[in-house]
Amino acid sequence: MAGGVGRRFWPLSRSERPKQLLDLFGDGALLAVTAARVAPLTPPKRQVIVTSTTLGPACRRLLPDLPAANLLAEPVGKNTAAAVGWAALHVRRRDPDGVLMVLPADHHIADVAAYRDACAKAVKAARAGRIVTLGIEPTRPETGYGYINRTAPLGGGLYAVAAFKEKPDPGTARDYLADGDYLWNAGMFFLRAQVAIDELTRFEPELMAALSALDVDDPSAEAVASVYPTLKSISIDYAVMERSDKVAVLPGDFGWSDVGSWRSLWDFRPAGASTFARGDVYEIDGGDNVLLADGGTVAVVGVRDLIVVHTADATLVCPREQAQRLREVVAALEADRREGLL
Amino acid sequence: MAGGVGRRFWPLSRSERPKQLLDLFGDGALLAVTAARVAPLTPPKRQVIVTSTTLGPACRRLLPDLPAANLLAEPVGKNTAAAVGWAALHVRRRDPDGVLMVLPADHHIADVAAYRDACAKAVKAARAGRIVTLGIEPTRPETGYGYINRTAPLGGGLYAVAAFKEKPDPGTARDYLADGDYLWNAGMFFLRAQVAIDELTRFEPELMAALSALDVDDPSAEAVASVYPTLKSISIDYAVMERSDKVAVLPGDFGWSDVGSWRSLWDFRPAGASTFARGDVYEIDGGDNVLLADGGTVAVVGVRDLIVVHTADATLVCPREQAQRLREVVAALEADRREGLL
Repeated sequence: MAGGVGRRFWPLSRSERPKQLLDLFGDGALLAVTAARVAPLTPPKRQVIVTSTTLGPACRRLLPDLPAANLLAEPVGKNTAAAVGWAALHVRRRDPDGVLMVLPADHHIADVAAYRDACAKAVKAARAGRIVTLGIEPTRPETGYGYINRTAPLGGGLYAVAAFKEKPDPGTARDYLADGDYLWNAGMFFLRAQVAIDELTRFEPELMAALSALDVDDPSAEAVASVYPTLKSISIDYAVMERSDKVAVLPGDFGWSDVGSWRSLWDFRPAGASTFARGDVYEIDGGDNVLLADGGTVAVVGVRDLIVVHTADATLVCPREQAQRLREVVAALEADRREGLL
Repeated sequence: MAGGVGRRFWPLSRSERPKQLLDLFGDGALLAVTAARVAPLTPPKRQVIVTSTTLGPACRRLLPDLPAANLLAEPVGKNTAAAVGWAALHVRRRDPDGVLMVLPADHHIADVAAYRDACAKAVKAARAGRIVTLGIEPTRPETGYGYINRTAPLGGGLYAVAAFKEKPDPGTARDYLADGDYLWNAGMFFLRAQVAIDELTRFEPELMAALSALDVDDPSAEAVASVYPTLKSISIDYAVMERSDKVAVLPGDFGWSDVGSWRSLWDFRPAGASTFARGDVYEIDGGDNVLLADGGTVAVVGVRDLIVVHTADATLVCPREQAQRLREVVAALEADRREGLL
């Protein structure tokens, strides 16, 4: 899933260069890193990218080994249920027993080997009919993630799911952490293509009926353009995960982060460093900063706990622990119709 | 005097674009504003610019009405005594009774009418043989300026000078302010060209003797290049002002600032505003900042008391009250031989 248009990395992220296309860690664009991470489990020719028509060319450039037909370009974003439904139809036509690993293109995984092990386990359970979601053992009372309340063990490392929980307030997050049966919802799902189609047909019959027009070999851009605007916009979480009795959670611990904000980069500062720095950065007598220079130089002196991001045409400065307020900047730019900056 | 190479406005100021060429206030380059400010007293054809050979072309572009011969281009900086001596020779050849107004090209004057009145008074006294320096009535215990200790009134608003004082420590600055007879040294001098030559000949005879090779009509660049490297580097303050018995001070109050750092711009924020902003700046829930965007956009959210400067290839961030630490940044860039940024 590589269709996001988020602006939580402004001014680096723009409409035509959202987060999944950014190289935030110096190892490549997040989309390319995500594809490479699972390539030992599912090679490029069996990977499917759902993105927007706008971002399609950039995705193709990043993933030269991806078959052209495996790039599903949405003319308009309709949330994740539509994306999963379309991908499920695409996969089922090629392999009626195919299993989907539904993965966001813009997350970070520290322990790739452990992650692949978890994916393999999840795929095995999915092959048997489960809908498996990865749950991350929480390490702090994070308020920026949704949670999964697990209950009874189901064997194979899986647990039943009592409920999906929205992002909690700080007190609730502390309770979740203390409880021990709450896991972070990483938004990664594993299920047979047929199961995805069955469950979407059961819970969102109109959505799946409309999508079935795309259940042909290589649907034309015109066909997609006539179907997509009519689709209901709903997340796969609401449409299926919170409703289906096939859902199970596989707890995992592999250094997962959704890289949700400039603040989150601070967690990836090198061992022993107090600052996360990328690009040509001079930090004098300061620390605990997130500093990023994209094609230029950032020089800071005597400052702490700041986010400073330089691009050729814009600079952002905000306190490290107020990264979420970037949305206020983006809102102001939108209000002023500053499309050139967005 | 427009030969400065200071980097106190990095990243906006660079080797080939020092402060006097910058438009810090939105009303034009400081050099052009300085020339226009005194044009009613001395028109462009009688203005003389002393600058470096490097900056000469840029100065000419800013001052299209300046006669070509009136731009004195130094192949190497030799401090202000040499600059004043050369300018004095140039002026005396055109008018043996000519009076010099020796003015830095990069200061800011809020009350231009009051300033011109003060200049006219100073010129009148200079015509009678005095060396007049403008002294600014201090409004705060500033440690960033030199001071002039005035004593007895001499008539015409002038005072005798007991001593020039270096930049004081905070306690001394408070004493100066309470005393009432200490004025800020604005570095602006008024004296007859012949007096300048006489006093330089008296106190720095070797310097003046060497300069006399340039006392010809339109000296060639080769002549200048053969003289200049041999000159003693000394300020006009040390060479003449602190030694001559002709010196008098004219107190003035016309909103003077030497615009010595990014911090100083904060004093020029609009009435009622807590932030000085220039260029395309978004400040959300913050204040007391100095924010400048040169050809791009600066967006800050939730920050106070910061200096943020964006140029296409560099961003500076430092606390407003630590602007002097910019020199540490410049030193680091110099140590790394980052000529492209300097």
